[in-house]
Amino acid sequence: MTENPSDFKSWPKHPRIGIIGGLGAMGKLFHRFFTERGATVAVSDVGTPLSNHDVIDQSHVVLVSVPLHRASNILQDLAPRFRPGQLVLDICSLKMPPQKAMEGCAAWYVGLHPMYGPYVEDFVGQTMIVCPGHVAPQPWQWLMSLLEKAGLKIHICSAQEHDRMMTVIQLIPHVTTVVLGHCLREMGIDAAESLRFTSPIYRLELDLIGRLFAQDAALYAAIAMENPYKSEVLEVLRRVFGETMDAVEHGRWQAFIQAFEQTRAHFGEFCTQALHETNQLLTWHQNANNHGNQKASVDNKAKLSSTPFSYNAPLQGAQEGEKAHA
Amino acid sequence: MTENPSDFKSWPKHPRIGIIGGLGAMGKLFHRFFTERGATVAVSDVGTPLSNHDVIDQSHVVLVSVPLHRASNILQDLAPRFRPGQLVLDICSLKMPPQKAMEGCAAWYVGLHPMYGPYVEDFVGQTMIVCPGHVAPQPWQWLMSLLEKAGLKIHICSAQEHDRMMTVIQLIPHVTTVVLGHCLREMGIDAAESLRFTSPIYRLELDLIGRLFAQDAALYAAIAMENPYKSEVLEVLRRVFGETMDAVEHGRWQAFIQAFEQTRAHFGEFCTQALHETNQLLTWHQNANNHGNQKASVDNKAKLSSTPFSYNAPLQGAQEGEKAHA
Repeated sequence: MTENPSDFKSWPKHPRIGIIGGLGAMGKLFHRFFTERGATVAVSDVGTPLSNHDVIDQSHVVLVSVPLHRASNILQDLAPRFRPGQLVLDICSLKMPPQKAMEGCAAWYVGLHPMYGPYVEDFVGQTMIVCPGHVAPQPWQWLMSLLEKAGLKIHICSAQEHDRMMTVIQLIPHVTTVVLGHCLREMGIDAAESLRFTSPIYRLELDLIGRLFAQDAALYAAIAMENPYKSEVLEVLRRVFGETMDAVEHGRWQAFIQAFEQTRAHFGEFCTQALHETNQLLTWHQNANNHGNQKASVDNKAKLSSTPFSYNAPLQGAQEGEKAHA
Repeated sequence: MTENPSDFKSWPKHPRIGIIGGLGAMGKLFHRFFTERGATVAVSDVGTPLSNHDVIDQSHVVLVSVPLHRASNILQDLAPRFRPGQLVLDICSLKMPPQKAMEGCAAWYVGLHPMYGPYVEDFVGQTMIVCPGHVAPQPWQWLMSLLEKAGLKIHICSAQEHDRMMTVIQLIPHVTTVVLGHCLREMGIDAAESLRFTSPIYRLELDLIGRLFAQDAALYAAIAMENPYKSEVLEVLRRVFGETMDAVEHGRWQAFIQAFEQTRAHFGEFCTQALHETNQLLTWHQNANNHGNQKASVDNKAKLSSTPFSYNAPLQGAQEGEKAHA
């Protein structure tokens, strides 16, 4: 180690920042963030002149921005190199695994989870979850001040609380969206064709599916597979999915309605608020996407026959004798 | 029957419109729509002075706007009352069941599916699916002209094609959203609390869940349960869900990634487009909802301990020995 600033008081006004994984999308985002705030930033990544160890040795604050599925191993390897008086941050989407990897490390440690991707223009109004590891009051205040001044909504909680809530915020929604995408593929549904039939909601939902599949498969795999609370939450999801599917499949009208009303009661006034918010949102989305799409309305002006349906798997026509109404 | 305009030429410039179920939300929407266009509109519903038969007898065009799960029975009962030269329209979310109920009816018949709810301000840019039953050229042109002038995007297809595509546009997304809502309830997740941890995507998805549960349970039950293609589509959904859940549960990294990449390839360029569109959308949604929410950022300024997590079911802490990384 080239120096040992063991006390926070030895940090200069602008502590030197190191970013491990600084060439990734999130690494670049934080590189810009720190640089814009007057900091000197050193970066390591595959192929950079500086190694991870170089960056650690030169920096007061080290931000670890590496793929989630590699983060624990990388942090474990680096932990002995971090030194007293140094603040280590990571931005993993799970917080218990990196915290565990940093146990016993000589440096201060705080886990961060920016609840936004590399596409945001700035951090104003975005949510940053902060899970304190072990850290002295001064570097903690330095960090809080940095985040608050950036306009972030800061939510402080334990790594356990974070990872549990991520089953709801990320694991279940991601897995469900992945399932929806796979279903559309297996049914051979063409996105553009389906949009000719679209409701505003479907257009939005298809956009959210497309967005997920535009991103990194390994990130979604890791968020789902490495959450410490995975098993118990998947059990709930599997059971609720099964119950709902059974009700629909077997036409259990009352069971479906009863469960629906229970959920409505659980959410209470939020439902009305959500209806109001989404009405505004859908109007905006509709207007934003109508631009250039007007041709759709004349494409089939005189068309009376149907176009071939694009399921890959042959689907039988509806049975004449099928009971359509319960 | 009080009159028998058996030929389209006998319709006046503004044919008289009847709406059966005219006091429902969609009935009112179309009442306003027709009235604004200079038509005389007669309405029947529970408790109205006019009966369904009165409305049929007085009208050139009859719009049937009744709950989906009752539509087939109502249409079957009324079918003998409809007369030649009369145009019957319905706005059910499924098109094969009403078409079947109208088979052999003396009146002309066209099935409509407005892909929007009663909350829209006007019809401009919205999608209207049109499934021709049996109809002469003149009333067909009258209808098309009416819809086109309203600025609707018209998509013409067979009832079969419609109902198949609705498995993708409505059945699968609705069932999935219902499952997500039930999961949140069973896990005791409070909407407001979860939003303290939110990503923009989750905020949007939670809004879509809340929106669904603000609406009519019976409509969602009927859309899911009465689709003629239900069984084969639920089979695909069940299988894909099972495969995806198994991959996540058992940490089958390669299987998950491979399926993900196949779906990405299936959607092709749509993914990039969707990422771009949703970036704009999320920025808008973020800005729209930050108003009045700024207090969240200061609520927990000094808080270092965690708040109790709100799962109803007791969740064990993560096992120390659990393998967090594959």
